[in-house]
Amino acid sequence: MVLGKVVGTVVSAQKDKSFAGKKLLIVKAIDLDGKLLDPFVVAVDTVGVGTGETVLVVNGSSARMTEETKDKSIDSVIVARVDSIQVEAQ
Amino acid sequence: MVLGKVVGTVVSAQKDKSFAGKKLLIVKAIDLDGKLLDPFVVAVDTVGVGTGETVLVVNGSSARMTEETKDKSIDSVIVARVDSIQVEAQ
Amino acid sequence: MVLGKVVGTVVSAQKDKSFAGKKLLIVKAIDLDGKLLDPFVVAVDTVGVGTGETVLVVNGSSARMTEETKDKSIDSVIVARVDSIQVEAQ
Amino acid sequence: MVLGKVVGTVVSAQKDKSFAGKKLLIVKAIDLDGKLLDPFVVAVDTVGVGTGETVLVVNGSSARMTEETKDKSIDSVIVARVDSIQVEAQ
Amino acid sequence: MVLGKVVGTVVSAQKDKSFAGKKLLIVKAIDLDGKLLDPFVVAVDTVGVGTGETVLVVNGSSARMTEETKDKSIDSVIVARVDSIQVEAQ
Repeated sequence: MVLGKVVGTVVSAQKDKSFAGKKLLIVKAIDLDGKLLDPFVVAVDTVGVGTGETVLVVNGSSARMTEETKDKSIDSVIVARVDSIQVEAQ
Repeated sequence: MVLGKVVGTVVSAQKDKSFAGKKLLIVKAIDLDGKLLDPFVVAVDTVGVGTGETVLVVNGSSARMTEETKDKSIDSVIVARVDSIQVEAQ
Repeated sequence: MVLGKVVGTVVSAQKDKSFAGKKLLIVKAIDLDGKLLDPFVVAVDTVGVGTGETVLVVNGSSARMTEETKDKSIDSVIVARVDSIQVEAQ
Repeated sequence: MVLGKVVGTVVSAQKDKSFAGKKLLIVKAIDLDGKLLDPFVVAVDTVGVGTGETVLVVNGSSARMTEETKDKSIDSVIVARVDSIQVEAQ
Repeated sequence: MVLGKVVGTVVSAQKDKSFAGKKLLIVKAIDLDGKLLDPFVVAVDTVGVGTGETVLVVNGSSARMTEETKDKSIDSVIVARVDSIQVEAQ
Protein backbone atom coordinates (compact mmCIF):
# COMPACT_ATOMS: atom_id res chain seq x y z
CA MET A 1 0.00 0.00 0.00
CA VAL A 2 1.06 3.56 -0.62
CA LEU A 3 1.06 6.18 2.10
CA GLY A 4 -0.46 9.47 1.00
CA LYS A 5 -2.37 12.57 1.93
CA VAL A 6 -5.68 13.72 0.46
CA VAL A 7 -5.15 17.10 -1.20
CA GLY A 8 -8.21 17.52 -3.40
CA THR A 9 -11.11 16.15 -5.40
CA VAL A 10 -11.97 15.41 -9.02
CA VAL A 11 -15.36 16.17 -10.55
CA SER A 12 -16.52 14.27 -13.61
CA ALA A 13 -19.98 14.04 -15.14
CA GLN A 14 -19.17 11.83 -18.12
CA LYS A 15 -17.56 8.62 -16.97
CA ASP A 16 -17.70 4.86 -17.12
CA LYS A 17 -20.58 3.46 -15.09
CA SER A 18 -18.09 1.87 -12.68
CA PHE A 19 -17.66 5.35 -11.26
CA ALA A 20 -21.33 6.17 -10.68
CA GLY A 21 -21.68 7.57 -7.16
CA LYS A 22 -18.01 7.18 -6.39
CA LYS A 23 -16.05 9.95 -4.68
CA LEU A 24 -12.77 10.65 -6.45
CA LEU A 25 -9.98 12.04 -4.30
CA ILE A 26 -6.54 13.28 -5.23
CA VAL A 27 -3.92 11.63 -3.03
CA LYS A 28 -0.34 12.83 -3.00
CA ALA A 29 2.40 10.48 -1.89
CA ILE A 30 4.18 11.52 1.30
CA ASP A 31 7.50 10.57 2.81
CA LEU A 32 7.94 9.19 6.33
CA ASP A 33 8.10 12.72 7.76
CA GLY A 34 4.70 13.49 6.26
CA LYS A 35 6.18 15.77 3.58
CA LEU A 36 4.17 15.88 0.35
CA LEU A 37 5.96 14.40 -2.67
CA ASP A 38 5.23 15.11 -6.34
CA PRO A 39 3.57 11.82 -7.41
CA PHE A 40 -0.18 11.68 -6.97
CA VAL A 41 -3.05 9.42 -7.90
CA VAL A 42 -6.81 9.80 -8.22
CA ALA A 43 -8.37 7.19 -5.95
CA VAL A 44 -11.90 6.08 -5.08
CA ASP A 45 -12.73 6.68 -1.41
CA THR A 46 -14.26 3.65 0.34
CA VAL A 47 -13.54 4.81 3.88
CA GLY A 48 -14.95 8.33 4.13
CA VAL A 49 -11.92 10.56 4.46
CA GLY A 50 -11.42 14.26 3.95
CA THR A 51 -8.85 16.64 2.60
CA GLY A 52 -5.69 16.78 4.69
CA GLU A 53 -6.03 13.28 6.07
CA THR A 54 -3.32 10.65 5.77
CA VAL A 55 -4.47 7.48 4.02
CA LEU A 56 -3.41 4.16 2.57
CA VAL A 57 -4.02 3.57 -1.13
CA VAL A 58 -4.24 0.17 -2.81
CA ASN A 59 -3.43 0.02 -6.53
CA GLY A 60 -3.94 -2.51 -9.30
CA SER A 61 -6.26 -5.50 -9.25
CA SER A 62 -6.44 -5.49 -5.44
CA ALA A 63 -8.27 -2.16 -5.75
CA ARG A 64 -11.23 -4.23 -6.98
CA MET A 65 -11.40 -6.34 -3.81
CA THR A 66 -13.49 -3.98 -1.67
CA GLU A 67 -17.28 -4.32 -1.65
CA GLU A 68 -17.72 -0.93 -3.32
CA THR A 69 -15.24 -1.60 -6.14
CA LYS A 70 -15.85 -5.28 -6.97
CA ASP A 71 -15.45 -5.97 -10.73
CA LYS A 72 -15.24 -2.26 -11.52
CA SER A 73 -12.81 -0.48 -13.83
CA ILE A 74 -11.05 1.08 -10.86
CA ASP A 75 -7.33 0.69 -10.20
CA SER A 76 -6.81 2.89 -7.14
CA VAL A 77 -8.76 2.95 -3.89
CA ILE A 78 -8.38 4.43 -0.43
CA VAL A 79 -8.61 1.56 2.07
CA ALA A 80 -7.66 3.18 5.38
CA ARG A 81 -7.37 6.42 7.29
CA VAL A 82 -3.98 6.44 8.98
CA ASP A 83 -4.01 7.45 12.64
CA SER A 84 -0.27 7.39 13.19
CA ILE A 85 2.96 5.96 11.92
CA GLN A 86 5.94 4.96 14.03
CA VAL A 87 9.36 5.03 12.42
CA GLU A 88 12.46 4.00 14.30
CA ALA A 89 15.64 6.06 14.22
CA GLN A 90 17.64 4.91 11.21
CA MET B 1 -6.37 6.51 -11.79
CA VAL B 2 -3.97 8.79 -13.59
CA LEU B 3 -4.86 12.37 -14.45
CA GLY B 4 -3.91 13.31 -18.00
CA LYS B 5 -4.65 15.37 -21.06
CA VAL B 6 -5.38 14.04 -24.54
CA VAL B 7 -2.69 15.34 -26.91
CA GLY B 8 -3.03 13.15 -29.98
CA THR B 9 -4.06 9.94 -31.71
CA VAL B 10 -2.43 6.74 -32.93
CA VAL B 11 -3.33 5.10 -36.24
CA SER B 12 -2.69 1.40 -36.75
CA ALA B 13 -3.98 -0.91 -39.47
CA GLN B 14 -2.24 -4.11 -38.39
CA LYS B 15 -3.16 -4.93 -34.81
CA ASP B 16 -4.51 -7.59 -32.47
CA LYS B 17 -8.25 -8.11 -32.93
CA SER B 18 -8.83 -6.71 -29.43
CA PHE B 19 -8.25 -3.31 -30.97
CA ALA B 20 -10.71 -3.57 -33.85
CA GLY B 21 -12.80 -0.40 -33.93
CA LYS B 22 -11.09 1.08 -30.90
CA LYS B 23 -9.97 4.70 -30.84
CA LEU B 24 -6.42 5.05 -29.58
CA LEU B 25 -5.57 8.32 -27.89
CA ILE B 26 -2.26 9.66 -26.62
CA VAL B 27 -2.66 10.89 -23.05
CA LYS B 28 0.08 12.89 -21.36
CA ALA B 29 0.26 12.98 -17.58
CA ILE B 30 -0.39 16.41 -16.06
CA ASP B 31 0.40 17.88 -12.67
CA LEU B 32 -2.19 19.47 -10.37
CA ASP B 33 -1.75 22.83 -12.13
CA GLY B 34 -2.65 21.20 -15.45
CA LYS B 35 0.92 21.42 -16.77
CA LEU B 36 1.84 18.64 -19.21
CA LEU B 37 4.49 16.22 -17.94
CA ASP B 38 6.73 13.99 -20.04
CA PRO B 39 5.21 10.54 -19.36
CA PHE B 40 2.42 9.51 -21.72
CA VAL B 41 0.38 6.44 -22.51
CA VAL B 42 -1.68 5.25 -25.44
CA ALA B 43 -5.17 4.53 -24.11
CA VAL B 44 -8.43 3.23 -25.56
CA ASP B 45 -11.21 5.80 -25.39
CA THR B 46 -14.48 4.47 -23.93
CA VAL B 47 -15.97 7.85 -23.09
CA GLY B 48 -15.78 9.90 -26.28
CA VAL B 49 -13.24 12.59 -25.54
CA GLY B 50 -11.24 14.85 -27.80
CA THR B 51 -7.81 16.38 -28.00
CA GLY B 52 -7.13 18.93 -25.26
CA GLU B 53 -9.54 17.41 -22.77
CA THR B 54 -8.54 16.37 -19.26
CA VAL B 55 -9.24 12.70 -18.53
CA LEU B 56 -8.79 9.87 -16.06
CA VAL B 57 -6.90 6.79 -17.25
CA VAL B 58 -7.15 3.33 -15.70
CA ASN B 59 -4.19 1.02 -16.19
CA GLY B 60 -3.56 -2.71 -15.75
CA SER B 61 -6.18 -5.43 -15.38
CA SER B 62 -8.85 -2.92 -14.32
CA ALA B 63 -8.63 -1.51 -17.86
CA ARG B 64 -10.46 -4.68 -18.93
CA MET B 65 -13.46 -4.01 -16.68
CA THR B 66 -15.39 -1.70 -19.00
CA GLU B 67 -17.97 -3.14 -21.40
CA GLU B 68 -15.91 -2.16 -24.43
CA THR B 69 -12.65 -3.68 -23.17
CA LYS B 70 -13.81 -6.89 -21.43
CA ASP B 71 -11.29 -9.74 -21.89
CA LYS B 72 -9.28 -7.75 -24.40
CA SER B 73 -5.50 -7.31 -24.60
CA ILE B 74 -5.81 -3.71 -23.49
CA ASP B 75 -4.00 -2.30 -20.46
CA SER B 76 -4.92 1.38 -20.59
CA VAL B 77 -8.33 2.97 -20.97
CA ILE B 78 -9.88 6.42 -20.61
CA VAL B 79 -12.76 6.11 -18.11
CA ALA B 80 -13.78 9.72 -17.48
CA ARG B 81 -13.70 13.25 -18.82
CA VAL B 82 -12.65 15.50 -15.98
CA ASP B 83 -14.76 18.64 -15.54
CA SER B 84 -12.76 20.20 -12.75
CA ILE B 85 -10.32 19.46 -9.98
CA GLN B 86 -10.19 21.19 -6.61
CA VAL B 87 -6.87 21.26 -4.80
CA GLU B 88 -6.50 22.86 -1.40
CA ALA B 89 -3.62 25.20 -0.59
CA GLN B 90 -0.71 23.09 0.59
CA MET C 1 -0.20 0.81 -24.10
CA VAL C 2 3.39 1.90 -24.49
CA LEU C 3 4.70 3.41 -27.70
CA GLY C 4 8.03 1.96 -28.77
CA LYS C 5 10.38 1.03 -31.57
CA VAL C 6 11.76 -2.43 -32.27
CA VAL C 7 15.55 -2.28 -32.00
CA GLY C 8 16.62 -5.91 -31.75
CA THR C 9 15.95 -9.54 -30.90
CA VAL C 10 16.66 -11.95 -28.06
CA VAL C 11 17.72 -15.55 -28.63
CA SER C 12 17.11 -18.14 -25.93
CA ALA C 13 17.28 -21.94 -26.15
CA GLN C 14 16.49 -22.78 -22.53
CA LYS C 15 13.22 -21.22 -21.49
CA ASP C 16 9.81 -21.84 -19.99
CA LYS C 17 7.52 -23.71 -22.37
CA SER C 18 5.30 -20.63 -22.58
CA PHE C 19 7.95 -19.21 -24.90
CA ALA C 20 8.20 -22.14 -27.33
CA GLY C 21 8.06 -20.76 -30.85
CA LYS C 22 7.66 -17.19 -29.70
CA LYS C 23 9.64 -14.37 -31.29
CA LEU C 24 11.21 -12.13 -28.66
CA LEU C 25 11.82 -8.53 -29.70
CA ILE C 26 13.58 -5.71 -27.90
CA VAL C 27 11.37 -2.63 -27.88
CA LYS C 28 12.71 0.73 -26.77
CA ALA C 29 10.32 3.39 -25.53
CA ILE C 30 10.12 6.47 -27.75
CA ASP C 31 8.88 9.99 -27.12
CA LEU C 32 6.24 11.73 -29.23
CA ASP C 33 8.93 12.91 -31.67
CA GLY C 34 10.00 9.32 -32.27
CA LYS C 35 13.25 9.74 -30.35
CA LEU C 36 14.49 6.57 -28.64
CA LEU C 37 14.47 6.69 -24.84
CA ASP C 38 16.52 4.52 -22.47
CA PRO C 39 13.83 2.19 -21.07
CA PHE C 40 13.26 -0.99 -23.05
CA VAL C 41 11.35 -4.21 -22.70
CA VAL C 42 11.56 -7.68 -24.24
CA ALA C 43 8.16 -8.40 -25.78
CA VAL C 44 6.56 -11.31 -27.63
CA ASP C 45 5.58 -10.39 -31.18
CA THR C 46 2.01 -11.36 -32.10
CA VAL C 47 1.71 -9.04 -35.08
CA GLY C 48 4.71 -9.76 -37.29
CA VAL C 49 6.83 -6.66 -37.06
CA GLY C 50 10.46 -6.00 -37.87
CA THR C 51 13.37 -3.99 -36.56
CA GLY C 52 12.90 -0.25 -36.91
CA GLU C 53 9.12 -0.37 -36.80
CA THR C 54 7.02 1.61 -34.34
CA VAL C 55 4.74 -0.54 -32.21
CA LEU C 56 2.34 -0.63 -29.28
CA VAL C 57 3.24 -2.85 -26.34
CA VAL C 58 0.78 -4.19 -23.76
CA ASN C 59 2.19 -5.10 -20.35
CA GLY C 60 0.93 -7.04 -17.34
CA SER C 61 -1.99 -9.47 -17.26
CA SER C 62 -3.51 -7.96 -20.42
CA ALA C 63 -0.48 -9.34 -22.28
CA ARG C 64 -2.07 -12.76 -21.80
CA MET C 65 -5.29 -11.79 -23.61
CA THR C 66 -4.13 -12.45 -27.18
CA GLU C 67 -4.71 -15.86 -28.75
CA GLU C 68 -0.98 -16.58 -28.91
CA THR C 69 -0.28 -15.67 -25.28
CA LYS C 70 -3.37 -17.00 -23.44
CA ASP C 71 -2.48 -18.37 -19.98
CA LYS C 72 1.24 -18.08 -20.66
CA SER C 73 3.98 -16.69 -18.39
CA ILE C 74 4.34 -13.66 -20.64
CA ASP C 75 3.99 -10.08 -19.36
CA SER C 76 4.81 -8.04 -22.46
CA VAL C 77 3.43 -8.36 -25.97
CA ILE C 78 3.44 -6.34 -29.18
CA VAL C 79 -0.20 -5.81 -30.18
CA ALA C 80 0.03 -3.32 -33.07
CA ARG C 81 2.26 -1.85 -35.73
CA VAL C 82 1.84 1.91 -35.61
CA ASP C 83 1.32 3.59 -38.98
CA SER C 84 1.28 7.15 -37.74
CA ILE C 85 0.74 9.34 -34.73
CA GLN C 86 -0.81 12.79 -34.73
CA VAL C 87 0.12 15.14 -31.94
CA GLU C 88 -1.35 18.60 -31.66
CA ALA C 89 0.80 21.64 -30.97
CA GLN C 90 1.11 21.98 -27.21
CA MET D 1 10.12 -9.72 -5.01
CA VAL D 2 11.54 -6.57 -3.52
CA LEU D 3 14.29 -6.61 -0.92
CA GLY D 4 13.62 -4.27 1.98
CA LYS D 5 14.04 -3.51 5.64
CA VAL D 6 11.27 -2.97 8.17
CA VAL D 7 11.57 0.55 9.58
CA GLY D 8 8.21 1.17 11.24
CA THR D 9 4.53 0.50 11.66
CA VAL D 10 1.24 2.07 10.62
CA VAL D 11 -1.76 2.34 12.94
CA SER D 12 -5.26 2.67 11.50
CA ALA D 13 -8.63 2.27 13.20
CA GLN D 14 -10.88 3.05 10.25
CA LYS D 15 -10.09 0.73 7.37
CA ASP D 16 -11.52 -1.72 4.87
CA LYS D 17 -12.44 -5.01 6.50
CA SER D 18 -9.68 -6.73 4.50
CA PHE D 19 -7.29 -5.20 6.99
CA ALA D 20 -8.99 -6.38 10.20
CA GLY D 21 -6.34 -7.85 12.47
CA LYS D 22 -3.55 -7.30 9.96
CA LYS D 23 -0.20 -5.87 11.04
CA LEU D 24 0.92 -3.06 8.75
CA LEU D 25 4.66 -2.54 8.47
CA ILE D 26 6.65 0.14 6.69
CA VAL D 27 9.30 -1.44 4.51
CA LYS D 28 12.03 0.64 2.92
CA ALA D 29 13.81 -0.66 -0.15
CA ILE D 30 17.50 -1.42 0.35
CA ASP D 31 20.37 -1.83 -2.07
CA LEU D 32 22.63 -4.89 -2.20
CA ASP D 33 24.87 -3.42 0.50
CA GLY D 34 21.89 -3.16 2.84
CA LYS D 35 21.74 0.62 2.57
CA LEU D 36 18.25 2.10 2.98
CA LEU D 37 16.84 3.73 -0.16
CA ASP D 38 14.08 6.34 -0.33
CA PRO D 39 11.19 4.27 -1.75
CA PHE D 40 9.03 2.52 0.82
CA VAL D 41 5.80 0.59 0.94
CA VAL D 42 3.26 -0.30 3.62
CA ALA D 43 2.97 -4.10 3.62
CA VAL D 44 0.93 -6.68 5.53
CA ASP D 45 3.11 -8.98 7.61
CA THR D 46 2.34 -12.69 7.15
CA VAL D 47 5.63 -13.98 8.53
CA GLY D 48 6.05 -12.33 11.93
CA VAL D 49 8.97 -9.96 11.48
CA GLY D 50 10.14 -6.99 13.48
CA THR D 51 11.66 -3.59 12.95
CA GLY D 52 15.19 -3.73 11.58
CA GLU D 53 14.77 -7.07 9.86
CA THR D 54 15.45 -7.64 6.17
CA VAL D 55 12.46 -9.00 4.28
CA LEU D 56 11.06 -9.88 0.87
CA VAL D 57 7.92 -8.07 -0.26
CA VAL D 58 5.50 -9.30 -2.91
CA ASN D 59 3.42 -6.67 -4.70
CA GLY D 60 0.34 -6.73 -6.92
CA SER D 61 -2.12 -9.59 -7.35
CA SER D 62 0.40 -12.14 -6.05
CA ALA D 63 0.10 -10.40 -2.67
CA ARG D 64 -3.34 -12.03 -2.46
CA MET D 65 -1.95 -15.56 -2.79
CA THR D 66 -1.04 -16.15 0.86
CA GLU D 67 -3.59 -17.77 3.19
CA GLU D 68 -3.93 -14.58 5.25
CA THR D 69 -4.48 -12.29 2.26
CA LYS D 70 -6.67 -14.40 -0.06
CA ASP D 71 -9.23 -12.25 -1.94
CA LYS D 72 -8.42 -9.20 0.17
CA SER D 73 -7.85 -5.62 -0.99
CA ILE D 74 -4.16 -5.90 -0.20
CA ASP D 75 -1.42 -5.25 -2.76
CA SER D 76 1.74 -5.61 -0.70
CA VAL D 77 2.74 -8.40 1.66
CA ILE D 78 5.87 -9.53 3.48
CA VAL D 79 6.51 -13.17 2.47
CA ALA D 80 9.94 -13.92 3.94
CA ARG D 81 12.49 -12.89 6.53
CA VAL D 82 15.86 -12.76 4.78
CA ASP D 83 18.70 -14.49 6.62
CA SER D 84 21.47 -13.55 4.24
CA ILE D 85 22.22 -12.49 0.71
CA GLN D 86 25.26 -13.46 -1.32
CA VAL D 87 26.36 -11.11 -4.06
CA GLU D 88 29.31 -11.89 -6.27
CA ALA D 89 31.98 -9.31 -7.03
CA GLN D 90 30.83 -7.37 -10.06
CA MET E 1 10.00 -9.21 -19.89
CA VAL E 2 12.98 -7.58 -18.27
CA LEU E 3 16.54 -8.32 -19.35
CA GLY E 4 18.87 -8.90 -16.43
CA LYS E 5 21.92 -10.64 -15.06
CA VAL E 6 22.05 -12.96 -12.06
CA VAL E 7 24.37 -11.43 -9.45
CA GLY E 8 23.55 -13.32 -6.28
CA THR E 9 21.25 -15.37 -4.11
CA VAL E 10 18.92 -14.85 -1.16
CA VAL E 11 18.68 -17.27 1.77
CA SER E 12 15.53 -17.38 3.89
CA ALA E 13 14.41 -19.98 6.41
CA GLN E 14 11.16 -18.35 7.54
CA LYS E 15 8.92 -17.70 4.55
CA ASP E 16 5.48 -18.23 3.09
CA LYS E 17 4.94 -21.82 1.99
CA SER E 18 4.76 -20.64 -1.63
CA PHE E 19 8.53 -20.39 -1.45
CA ALA E 20 9.27 -23.87 -0.09
CA GLY E 21 12.05 -25.38 -2.18
CA LYS E 22 12.30 -22.36 -4.45
CA LYS E 23 15.68 -20.91 -5.43
CA LEU E 24 15.74 -17.15 -4.99
CA LEU E 25 18.13 -15.26 -7.24
CA ILE E 26 19.08 -11.59 -7.30
CA VAL E 27 18.77 -10.26 -10.84
CA LYS E 28 20.11 -6.84 -11.77
CA ALA E 29 18.69 -5.04 -14.77
CA ILE E 30 21.17 -4.54 -17.62
CA ASP E 31 21.22 -2.19 -20.57
CA LEU E 32 21.57 -3.30 -24.19
CA ASP E 33 25.39 -3.29 -23.87
CA GLY E 34 25.15 -5.73 -20.97
CA LYS E 35 26.12 -3.10 -18.41
CA LEU E 36 24.63 -3.65 -14.95
CA LEU E 37 22.10 -1.02 -13.85
CA ASP E 38 21.04 -0.19 -10.29
CA PRO E 39 17.52 -1.68 -10.19
CA PHE E 40 17.33 -5.30 -9.13
CA VAL E 41 14.69 -7.84 -8.22
CA VAL E 42 14.62 -11.11 -6.29
CA ALA E 43 13.19 -13.74 -8.64
CA VAL E 44 12.34 -17.43 -8.41
CA ASP E 45 14.43 -19.52 -10.79
CA THR E 46 12.39 -21.96 -12.91
CA VAL E 47 15.05 -22.53 -15.56
CA GLY E 48 18.21 -23.50 -13.69
CA VAL E 49 20.56 -20.59 -14.19
CA GLY E 50 23.68 -19.50 -12.35
CA THR E 51 25.40 -16.34 -11.26
CA GLY E 52 26.68 -14.24 -14.14
CA GLU E 53 24.13 -15.50 -16.64
CA THR E 54 21.84 -13.22 -18.62
CA VAL E 55 18.16 -13.97 -18.13
CA LEU E 56 14.61 -12.84 -18.82
CA VAL E 57 12.41 -12.04 -15.83
CA VAL E 58 8.59 -11.99 -15.86
CA ASN E 59 6.88 -9.84 -13.23
CA GLY E 60 3.34 -9.54 -11.88
CA SER E 61 0.52 -12.04 -12.30
CA SER E 62 2.22 -13.67 -15.31
CA ALA E 63 4.93 -14.83 -12.90
CA ARG E 64 2.33 -17.31 -11.62
CA MET E 65 1.83 -18.93 -15.02
CA THR E 66 4.74 -21.39 -14.90
CA GLU E 67 4.17 -24.91 -13.56
CA GLU E 68 6.43 -24.27 -10.56
CA THR E 69 4.76 -20.99 -9.55
CA LYS E 70 1.06 -21.66 -10.24
CA ASP E 71 -1.19 -19.93 -7.64
CA LYS E 72 1.77 -18.99 -5.48
CA SER E 73 2.52 -15.66 -3.80
CA ILE E 74 5.36 -15.02 -6.25
CA ASP E 75 5.57 -11.91 -8.43
CA SER E 76 8.91 -12.36 -10.15
CA VAL E 77 10.27 -15.38 -11.98
CA ILE E 78 13.19 -16.19 -14.30
CA VAL E 79 11.70 -17.70 -17.47
CA ALA E 80 14.68 -17.92 -19.83
CA ARG E 81 18.46 -18.02 -20.07
CA VAL E 82 19.46 -15.57 -22.77
CA ASP E 83 22.00 -16.88 -25.29
CA SER E 84 22.43 -13.70 -27.25
CA ILE E 85 20.84 -10.41 -28.11
CA GLN E 86 21.10 -8.61 -31.45
CA VAL E 87 20.67 -4.87 -31.46
CA GLU E 88 20.80 -2.85 -34.65
CA ALA E 89 22.83 0.33 -34.96
CA GLN E 90 20.63 3.18 -33.80
